[in-house]
Amino acid sequence: MRISAETERQFLEAVFKAQRFSAKDGALLADTLVDADLRGISSHGIQRLAWYTRMIKDHTLEPTNQPKILNETPTSLLIDANQSMGQIASAFTMNKLIEKTKQLGVSLAVIRNSNHFGTAGYYSRMACKAGLIGISTTNTRPLVVPTNATEAFLGSNALAFTFPADPHPFVFDGATAVVSSGKIQVLAKKGAQIPGDWAVDEHRQVLHDAQTVEDNLAKIAFSENRPGGGVLTLGGQQEVNSNYKGFGNSLIIELLTGILAQGSLSADTNTGKHDFSQFFMTINPALFGDPEVLKANVTTMFDRIRHLKHLPGTKIMIPGDREYRHYDENLVQGVSIDPQTLTEMQQVGAEFGVAVPAALKA
Amino acid sequence: MRISAETERQFLEAVFKAQRFSAKDGALLADTLVDADLRGISSHGIQRLAWYTRMIKDHTLEPTNQPKILNETPTSLLIDANQSMGQIASAFTMNKLIEKTKQLGVSLAVIRNSNHFGTAGYYSRMACKAGLIGISTTNTRPLVVPTNATEAFLGSNALAFTFPADPHPFVFDGATAVVSSGKIQVLAKKGAQIPGDWAVDEHRQVLHDAQTVEDNLAKIAFSENRPGGGVLTLGGQQEVNSNYKGFGNSLIIELLTGILAQGSLSADTNTGKHDFSQFFMTINPALFGDPEVLKANVTTMFDRIRHLKHLPGTKIMIPGDREYRHYDENLVQGVSIDPQTLTEMQQVGAEFGVAVPAALKA
Repeated sequence: MRISAETERQFLEAVFKAQRFSAKDGALLADTLVDADLRGISSHGIQRLAWYTRMIKDHTLEPTNQPKILNETPTSLLIDANQSMGQIASAFTMNKLIEKTKQLGVSLAVIRNSNHFGTAGYYSRMACKAGLIGISTTNTRPLVVPTNATEAFLGSNALAFTFPADPHPFVFDGATAVVSSGKIQVLAKKGAQIPGDWAVDEHRQVLHDAQTVEDNLAKIAFSENRPGGGVLTLGGQQEVNSNYKGFGNSLIIELLTGILAQGSLSADTNTGKHDFSQFFMTINPALFGDPEVLKANVTTMFDRIRHLKHLPGTKIMIPGDREYRHYDENLVQGVSIDPQTLTEMQQVGAEFGVAVPAALKA
Repeated sequence: MRISAETERQFLEAVFKAQRFSAKDGALLADTLVDADLRGISSHGIQRLAWYTRMIKDHTLEPTNQPKILNETPTSLLIDANQSMGQIASAFTMNKLIEKTKQLGVSLAVIRNSNHFGTAGYYSRMACKAGLIGISTTNTRPLVVPTNATEAFLGSNALAFTFPADPHPFVFDGATAVVSSGKIQVLAKKGAQIPGDWAVDEHRQVLHDAQTVEDNLAKIAFSENRPGGGVLTLGGQQEVNSNYKGFGNSLIIELLTGILAQGSLSADTNTGKHDFSQFFMTINPALFGDPEVLKANVTTMFDRIRHLKHLPGTKIMIPGDREYRHYDENLVQGVSIDPQTLTEMQQVGAEFGVAVPAALKA
């Protein structure tokens, strides 16, 4: 079932208003979810609304709070998100970094006491629109089992990296783990099987039933007596395939977020304080060359890669290709809403006095 | 067969002197190779000497050249390595970045017209010794097949990231691909099989004979009519296991090195101009908190991870654990020299009038 992006946006803005977010913050939150749905990243779209709503109820999330600057230098910011949604502090921070980097060529920021911030790519794309290289990362709930471990500790720890290019920027945006938990949630909602080696049980045996995994991850992420198993690091189940590199990548994000922010580690967000930390950086490529020349060189490189010899029936895609194609298609055909998400929209809508879009009532 | 690190160092310094490197540059080059052998990273140790020597002969490498600063700002450097070894420009650059970051909290540099620089970790560990976070990357020869591709384009594109911790820093240091070509070379020299899914043929079928792969990679890396196949991206053979994330990681390094430097892409270093590019960054963690508190928090986190439940007969190791253990062991027992590397040492030694250490003649 599909609705137009504008219809989704209006519904979300009305809900967020009823939840006491300011008009500006509600518009930002709605934009991050609509943007994810347009890009086909439905794991980070409107399907998160029910979760956001639960967090307001249990006061994990305070809708009216605003971010505070704790420390500022010409190249850096330390921000307290003040327990509001991650999107609010993140967009605030990225706008400030863009200004700093226009002055000194590079700047970076750490946010503590934050929450889920949507897709990491949303903020690094803000840098890209200003002609800058953007980096955006977050830690998350505990989900990921280190190499050889049989219990979760790390978050899926997202990383986005953007670089100006034509016809669209390079946008690498995803969990450093094999997959984000959202991707498993989407399969579970569809009653589907997991097609690859994504998650393991307490003996590090690979599991394929998405609902089984999702039930286990929910316990791992939110309970004190954490069961074993979790999501694998990039590189999969076996050390011989260098899965310790995926472990290392995820640890780097944990160092830049939970550690630099002196917030909770991913491992400790399962109970009690549920604070995520974020790290952002912007770099001006003009430090090293004419931005237009660099952009043209990147564009040429990507075209060469897209045209390399490849397996019949497959395509070579540059990070971002898939999302920008979905974006253009979904602007025309509307964004997809699965039945369970519709049910959740109806529940949240009923609770906050916002009618579900007419197109979804048919 | 083993020799002491000091014996290895003396042999290397004598060879580099005979090859017309300055005493200072020769000592640096020797130190990077001895350091790699001590850490058990034999792929980047003295086994590279024969290759370095070939590059001097074909003028890919000019031993007496010195790096030049092309552009400098309070937060950045653009350096021309002037076709000498990567180590020389890289150490020069990292020392300057450390000074800049002490002033403004963050700085970054790009080197063009460079060459192999040893282990990436050598330079990021320099930052760590100064209490800073260090990042060090390079592109390389073309070796790595993008997701779905059947021919190589990317380099193995190394990334090192270091963060101060006790009893030793966090040192993530390795190829962004499943493995570096050096790791395959070491197995081939031993006549061994490849234990995992590391390399594929022109149909993306996994190959396991190290010598077959090494022969193929040598053609891919150095010939105009490149045969198919190459090393896999982290995540392996199948898109379903998110190997496009490994592809993305490798592309990020290519953007920061070959593209920002306006040097050759990895893909184009196989013939003609054989120039690598490097990217470095240093960050002062004091921008965000008391460095001693951050260090203590990191140390505690790593200890918790090392003690997670894990598979019987395995260990959970933090990046750096293995290398620092090898370092301590090899300082006592000496570094390991394989028979083929000994033969190469004898050839290079004979050519440049340097006697192979007596311990190796037995």
